Amino acid sequence: MADSMASVESILAQDADRYVEDLKALLRIPSVSADTAFHDHCLSAAAETAEQLEAAGCSAEIISTAGFPIVLGRSPEVPGASTVLVYGHYDVQPPDPLDEWETPAFEPTIRDGRIYARGATDDKGQMLTHIKSVDAWTKAAGHPPINVVFVIEGEEEVGSDNLDQFLKDHREKLKADVAVISDTSMYGPDIPAITYGLRGIVACEVTLTGPSQDLHSGIFGGAIANPCNELATLIGSLHDADGRVTVEGFYDDVRSLTDQERQAFADLPFDEATFCNNIGVKAPRGEAGFTTTERRWARPTCDVNGLFGGYSGEGPKTIVPSKATAKITCRLVPDQKPEAILDALKRHLEDRLPDGVTMSFMTYHGAPAFVMDPDHPAMAAASTAIDRAFGKPPVLIREGGSIPVVASLKSILDVDTLLLGWGQNTDNLHSPNERFSLKDFQRGIHASAALWAELAK
Amino acid sequence: MADSMASVESILAQDADRYVEDLKALLRIPSVSADTAFHDHCLSAAAETAEQLEAAGCSAEIISTAGFPIVLGRSPEVPGASTVLVYGHYDVQPPDPLDEWETPAFEPTIRDGRIYARGATDDKGQMLTHIKSVDAWTKAAGHPPINVVFVIEGEEEVGSDNLDQFLKDHREKLKADVAVISDTSMYGPDIPAITYGLRGIVACEVTLTGPSQDLHSGIFGGAIANPCNELATLIGSLHDADGRVTVEGFYDDVRSLTDQERQAFADLPFDEATFCNNIGVKAPRGEAGFTTTERRWARPTCDVNGLFGGYSGEGPKTIVPSKATAKITCRLVPDQKPEAILDALKRHLEDRLPDGVTMSFMTYHGAPAFVMDPDHPAMAAASTAIDRAFGKPPVLIREGGSIPVVASLKSILDVDTLLLGWGQNTDNLHSPNERFSLKDFQRGIHASAALWAELAK
Repeated sequence: MADSMASVESILAQDADRYVEDLKALLRIPSVSADTAFHDHCLSAAAETAEQLEAAGCSAEIISTAGFPIVLGRSPEVPGASTVLVYGHYDVQPPDPLDEWETPAFEPTIRDGRIYARGATDDKGQMLTHIKSVDAWTKAAGHPPINVVFVIEGEEEVGSDNLDQFLKDHREKLKADVAVISDTSMYGPDIPAITYGLRGIVACEVTLTGPSQDLHSGIFGGAIANPCNELATLIGSLHDADGRVTVEGFYDDVRSLTDQERQAFADLPFDEATFCNNIGVKAPRGEAGFTTTERRWARPTCDVNGLFGGYSGEGPKTIVPSKATAKITCRLVPDQKPEAILDALKRHLEDRLPDGVTMSFMTYHGAPAFVMDPDHPAMAAASTAIDRAFGKPPVLIREGGSIPVVASLKSILDVDTLLLGWGQNTDNLHSPNERFSLKDFQRGIHASAALWAELAK
Repeated sequence: MADSMASVESILAQDADRYVEDLKALLRIPSVSADTAFHDHCLSAAAETAEQLEAAGCSAEIISTAGFPIVLGRSPEVPGASTVLVYGHYDVQPPDPLDEWETPAFEPTIRDGRIYARGATDDKGQMLTHIKSVDAWTKAAGHPPINVVFVIEGEEEVGSDNLDQFLKDHREKLKADVAVISDTSMYGPDIPAITYGLRGIVACEVTLTGPSQDLHSGIFGGAIANPCNELATLIGSLHDADGRVTVEGFYDDVRSLTDQERQAFADLPFDEATFCNNIGVKAPRGEAGFTTTERRWARPTCDVNGLFGGYSGEGPKTIVPSKATAKITCRLVPDQKPEAILDALKRHLEDRLPDGVTMSFMTYHGAPAFVMDPDHPAMAAASTAIDRAFGKPPVLIREGGSIPVVASLKSILDVDTLLLGWGQNTDNLHSPNERFSLKDFQRGIHASAALWAELAK
């Protein structure tokens, strides 16, 4: 195997320019899933992905869904070897605003060692690293030392509506020991990372109704409950002065950070003044007793995302509003249970509901948090592989957001995910002038190739 | 004088039908000030008002303003007698929705002793009672026993934008001992009332700004102040569990109700279940220790009239919003000072402003509360006059709203106002099928005529 990896590395060096040409070919296709005008381009991107899989020695099927097709690729079977499921997506965000692009969004252009195009990092460039690593293994050794299954979808930017059904329908074909997704970022330039934890989420909408219609605040004000005031009081009751959520039981199941985790977070380079300055706030704010990084990655939240009731036009209006609504999401951490958190939140509000208003409480689809077991053998393999490609081991980080496919892979296929990002979170994902460092593109291919070797050990 | 009043009463009986015909003539003019299509009709209504004033023996001028003209009338001068300023308005609300009228809005129609038309009670019918009472006095005695000055404007339904300037420009001509306005309501059918108090108002708008744009709540949630949550907490801090406003100094200048006032309020017929049922709430709610009537008429409030921030569309959205805004009005009672209340409110919010948000505080025009001194000689005169016309003395009531012209009359002309409503608050003011009881129209004329006699004593 050591010999194989040496051969693979020689192929990687030799074919580096071809990988970039193949990336350009994929980036030239404006596969914007959100806009029906780009429908045929999305199908072309699926076809190009399948072609590049086949060129890498894989079988490739383009499987129809109710939306855009999913490309299912498979490296030559290695009986008895472990199986890795690679997830990625060939669709991209709309390129607007077009006039803010220095070079056209679908004419990939290299400047200062970076390739600029929509999809460069999200996710064509990152996804392609795994196809190209299989390609290198095929050229060097006939096939990778393990089984690699590719699931490359075309609806990630519009909600992955048909992915879960696909995973259910093809559960048998998709059995795997671990999944790999490269759709996140490194911690910073030259700081490779493994994202081993993501927060979960629950979402709900609370509406208080007082009088059956808006009423004159002169005639009625002071004598009836005002849904705006009452909702504000309820929302205000969700946190204490220390920034802790006061909902009974909210923290019961929260898995504490270990001392090692806190130390690892603290060891990461982080400048709070820069962080605040970048988003235009004077100071951070959150749960007492935790650092900004801990608050973002490993502590649960209760955020109002929208608040509305009564009159929002110009000038004053003298009404007691009939209704007021809050949209609320809680970010969850391991081992909080989405249903239990929603129940507790509802009970908290109900228990404090004043006379003269009624409450409706509507919930949306939620997802639990995800953390990869640090002792999972794939973690060590990934760390070693990244060290080999980047010349340094990855830092272990978490992210505060949720990546729904990770929850789906866990719940439907019972497979844990390695989140190996090769991009930077400053690569203008979803913005004009999206880009991807070609050095990291090549290092990503290298790390991926090394990962197949490590997982085969 | 007793003899004169007997003569007046005989004229009132004799000319009752003519008064109704004159009312119809005014109601037929669609003087909708809000709609430029009705511009000429507003001028016609001013002309018709002036004609009826002249027919009543008054001089009448139609005085231009930057908007619709103001009709200035004046009864024959009685040197040494006191002067009453009658305020009213000849403009009306738009008649929409037209198809909900049983008979056309500008074809006055009598059914069951009530005249139906836009403006019947608000304010043509009520305003006309005072012109007709002067008319009766002129026929019976050559002129009223006092000086009556009429200020009848045409922009009351669109904000009276030019009234204050008019009052300032004609301050000398408008000197009066007391003002009379019939643009309110009786307490109930056959329960005449003098409205001796109105609440004042202050209005402001508070905006909290956190990050310079909406941010991803997964990436930032929990680590920065959320303006929606923070604003809710601030708004929630404005009241305590007993429904009292917690702003320091808020109640310092509040004039307490006297035992007699509380008793008078309690003696009024009022059914709380009906009150709640009519507006669709299960229970009233307000400051502990006060009745619903006291809360509405004589206690200050702090109501959020509008609350908005973040996402208000369908479904969830995972953001930490950049901004959140509350529109707030406080209803004031004597002797609260608008400026002091706004200052105290602002200070309350500033003192509690958390790290990571900034606050902007914008104020709108406000007005102090108004109460007529119960010992003002005009109060006794009005009570006696109403007793004579209605066969029972009026109840003394307050209203929770504000009537800006009352504040203007006080601040610009230093004159107190008798609010003598002849209508019912169920007369569909501002709604289809507006109406006015003809019995109360005639009793209003009678009371007005008697008032001139009483004020002359």
